Amino acid sequence: MPLLVMKFGGTSVADMARIKNAALKVKREVERGYDVIVIVSAMSGKTNELVGWVESTSPLYDAREYDAVVSSGENVTAGLMALTLQEMDVPARSWQGWQVPINTTSAHASARFKSIPADNINAKFAEGFKVAVVAGFQGVSPEGRITTLGRGGSDTTAVAFAAAFNAERCDIYTDVDGIYTTDPRITNKARKLDKIAFEEMLELASLGAKVLQTRSVELAMRYKVRLRVLSSFEDTDENSGTLVCDEDEIMESKVVSGVAYSRDEAKITLVTVADRPGIAAAIFGPLSEAGVNVDMIVQNISEKGDVGAVTDMTFSCPVNQVARACKAMEDAKTAGHINFEELNVDSDVAKISVVGIGMRSHAGVAATMFKALSSENVNIKVISTSEIKISVLIDRKYMELAVQALHDAFELEKAG
Amino acid sequence: MPLLVMKFGGTSVADMARIKNAALKVKREVERGYDVIVIVSAMSGKTNELVGWVESTSPLYDAREYDAVVSSGENVTAGLMALTLQEMDVPARSWQGWQVPINTTSAHASARFKSIPADNINAKFAEGFKVAVVAGFQGVSPEGRITTLGRGGSDTTAVAFAAAFNAERCDIYTDVDGIYTTDPRITNKARKLDKIAFEEMLELASLGAKVLQTRSVELAMRYKVRLRVLSSFEDTDENSGTLVCDEDEIMESKVVSGVAYSRDEAKITLVTVADRPGIAAAIFGPLSEAGVNVDMIVQNISEKGDVGAVTDMTFSCPVNQVARACKAMEDAKTAGHINFEELNVDSDVAKISVVGIGMRSHAGVAATMFKALSSENVNIKVISTSEIKISVLIDRKYMELAVQALHDAFELEKAG
Repeated sequence: MPLLVMKFGGTSVADMARIKNAALKVKREVERGYDVIVIVSAMSGKTNELVGWVESTSPLYDAREYDAVVSSGENVTAGLMALTLQEMDVPARSWQGWQVPINTTSAHASARFKSIPADNINAKFAEGFKVAVVAGFQGVSPEGRITTLGRGGSDTTAVAFAAAFNAERCDIYTDVDGIYTTDPRITNKARKLDKIAFEEMLELASLGAKVLQTRSVELAMRYKVRLRVLSSFEDTDENSGTLVCDEDEIMESKVVSGVAYSRDEAKITLVTVADRPGIAAAIFGPLSEAGVNVDMIVQNISEKGDVGAVTDMTFSCPVNQVARACKAMEDAKTAGHINFEELNVDSDVAKISVVGIGMRSHAGVAATMFKALSSENVNIKVISTSEIKISVLIDRKYMELAVQALHDAFELEKAG
Repeated sequence: MPLLVMKFGGTSVADMARIKNAALKVKREVERGYDVIVIVSAMSGKTNELVGWVESTSPLYDAREYDAVVSSGENVTAGLMALTLQEMDVPARSWQGWQVPINTTSAHASARFKSIPADNINAKFAEGFKVAVVAGFQGVSPEGRITTLGRGGSDTTAVAFAAAFNAERCDIYTDVDGIYTTDPRITNKARKLDKIAFEEMLELASLGAKVLQTRSVELAMRYKVRLRVLSSFEDTDENSGTLVCDEDEIMESKVVSGVAYSRDEAKITLVTVADRPGIAAAIFGPLSEAGVNVDMIVQNISEKGDVGAVTDMTFSCPVNQVARACKAMEDAKTAGHINFEELNVDSDVAKISVVGIGMRSHAGVAATMFKALSSENVNIKVISTSEIKISVLIDRKYMELAVQALHDAFELEKAG
C-alpha cells in the first residue's frame, strides 16, 4: 500500500471545525488508496499558553518538565483528529511520541531524532487501520522522559516519518498555498512555483519566506523526501501547492527561481583595521559571543595605513542587534584585541537576493541583476554570492522597487 | 524515610498562584522529613473543555481516544507542580501514568488499577529526589494505551499510591476544611469531626457530603490507608482537617457521628401488586435498565386482593428520574410482566439519615430519632435501616427542621 505523510500546523487545527476540514483531506487520500500518517501540531495558541505557564515558574526552568508540559497540546489534537476520522468511518488511532516510539536524544526542548521504528504503526496498518495520527514536535529520550524538538518541530517530525516509512510524499498543509517567486504583497506578478529544489527552498526559507522550517528542509534533502506545501483552507488536489524536491525532478529551465528580501538589516563597517593573521577571528568571535547574527561579510584591502597593511571590514546583521554589535566592537578595541579608526553604522539597508539552482551553470546572472538595479538608480552597497544565490545590500527605501525590477528582469512571472 | 501522599484537586491547582500555594504545603512536609508523592488533578475547567471537544466529534466516540485527550490536563499540572517545587529548591520530578507505570485494566474511561510498581519512583527517591509529582486520574492499559479512571479518579489514584508505597497517610487537599457532623449551612451548630470511620464516611459520602469519591474511600478501607481531608486554602498543620481511618483508631464514644440529607428525592408506590416469587426482580429489573437509581425499598404485606396474596411496593429515587421510573413501570404492566392497581408518586420528599459506627452496639438510636422528629410534628413516610445508618423519608419542607432537631437530639455539637 502506498503511504503518504500529511502534516497540519496549528492554524489548520485551531478548532473543531478546522480539524474536521483537515480530516476530510485525509479521508480523500485514504479513498485514493493511501495509508496515511498524519502529523499534527497543537491548536494555535495552546503551546504559547503552556510555555507561558512554564516560564512563569522560573527563568531557569527544568527543560525536562518544560517538555512534559508543552508536549500535551499535540496529544490533544492527535486524539481529536483520530476521533474525527473515526466519525467519518476512517479507521484511525492516535499515537503519542512514546507509543511509536519516536526515539530522540536527551537534549530537552531541542532534541534530535535517533530512530523511528516502523513496527508498531505498521502492525496497526496490517490490522486494517488506514490512518496513524501522530503528535508532532515530541519524542522520548533514552531515559524514558518526554522530549520536544523545539518550536516548529512538527514539520521536522513529518519529514522524519516520511523518511522512516518510505512515504511517497510528505504534504505540509499550512495557511499559504505554496512557494512564490517573491512576496505577492510586493508585486502582483509574483507567481506560485509548481516545483522548487531543496537547495533553493533552503535559501528562500532562511531569507524570510517563512513557510517551512529550515531544519525540516535539510532533513528532506538528506533523505530525498518529496515535500509539498499547500493550503489547508482551499480545495486541493494532487497538483496543488508547491513541490519541494530534488533538482533532478525539476524540468523548468529557469536560471532564477525567486527573489527574496530581508527588510531590517544594518551594515557596519570597521574602517582602517590593522590587517594581520587572525584579525577576522578577533572581530567575529566577540560578535558571536554577544549573540549577534552576522550575515554578509566583506573585506576590502585598503592602503591607508602608515604601518603594515590595513583593511576595511564590513558586515551586516539584523538592525535590532546593532547596539550589541557596536558594544562588542568597542569593548574588543578597549581590551586591545582589535584596532580600528572608525565604526560606521548604516541602519537603513535591506537585503535582496536572487536564488536559483540554474545559476550554477549560467553565467550572466550577476550582470543581469546589477544592470536591472542600476537602471532604476539603485546603488549597491555590499555584494555577497554563493553557489545558487546572489545577495546585495541596498538602501531600504528602494527595497520594493528593487524586488519588482529583479522579478521583471528575470521574467519570473512566466512559467518554465 | 517516612512517606506521605498529598492530593490536590482541580480548584487547588486552578492557576499558577494556587499551584504555588499547594507547592508550599508540599515543601513544608519535606522539611518535616517526609518523602512525598503528590497526586494532581487538571486545573479546574480544563477537563471539561477537553471532554467537550471529544463529545463534539461523535456521541459514540472511541473511549481510547477520549482517554488520550482528557488525560493531558493532569500531565500539564504535574509538570507545572514539579517546576514550582524545583524553584523552591525541592528536588522533584513529574510522572505520567505510563512512566510509573500505573497499570490498569483496558476498561477505557473507567479503568481499574492492576498494579503500581514502586521501583521506578523509589529509585528516584534513592537518588535524592524528595517529591514525585504524579498525574492523577490516569494509567496505562496492557496494550500500552492511556486509560483514565472516570471523573474524580484522582482521589482514587492518591489512595492507590498510598497503599502501594505504604504511606504513613494520604492527605486530600480540597476546598472544604474537613467532614462535618452535618451541613453547616443548615445549622451553625455543625461541628468539624477530628476523626471518622471509613464505614461512616462511605454512608455520608453517598448521602451527599460530596467531599471524597466513594470509590477512594472503599479502597482506603480495604488497604487501611489513613485518609485526611483538609483545606488547600487555609494554613494547615498535622492536626488540621478530618482523619478518615479504621474505627479502632477512634476514641470518641459518640453513638451517632453525623446527620446527612438528600433534598431532591421522590417516593413511588405500586399499590396492590400481585405478590409472587420473582416480583421484585420484575419491578426492579426494568427500573435498572431505564437508568433509575433506586435507593430505599420497602415492601408491606397487604390483604386487599381477592385472588392470592398482594402487596404494596414502595421505593425512592432522585426526583428527576420519576418520569423515567413511571414509564418503565407502565411499560412493564403493559407487557404483562407486573400488575398493580395504582402508581402513587410523591415528588416532595427528602431523605434524612443518621450515621454512626456506635449504633451497632447501642440500642435506642431509632427511638431517639423518631421521638425527636415526632416532637417537631415531622411525619415519617418511609424508614430504612442498615448496620450503621437509619434513614427516613419526610416531607421536603421539614428537611432543615429535621436536620436541626436530630443534630440537637444526638448532641452532635459536643465533641466526644
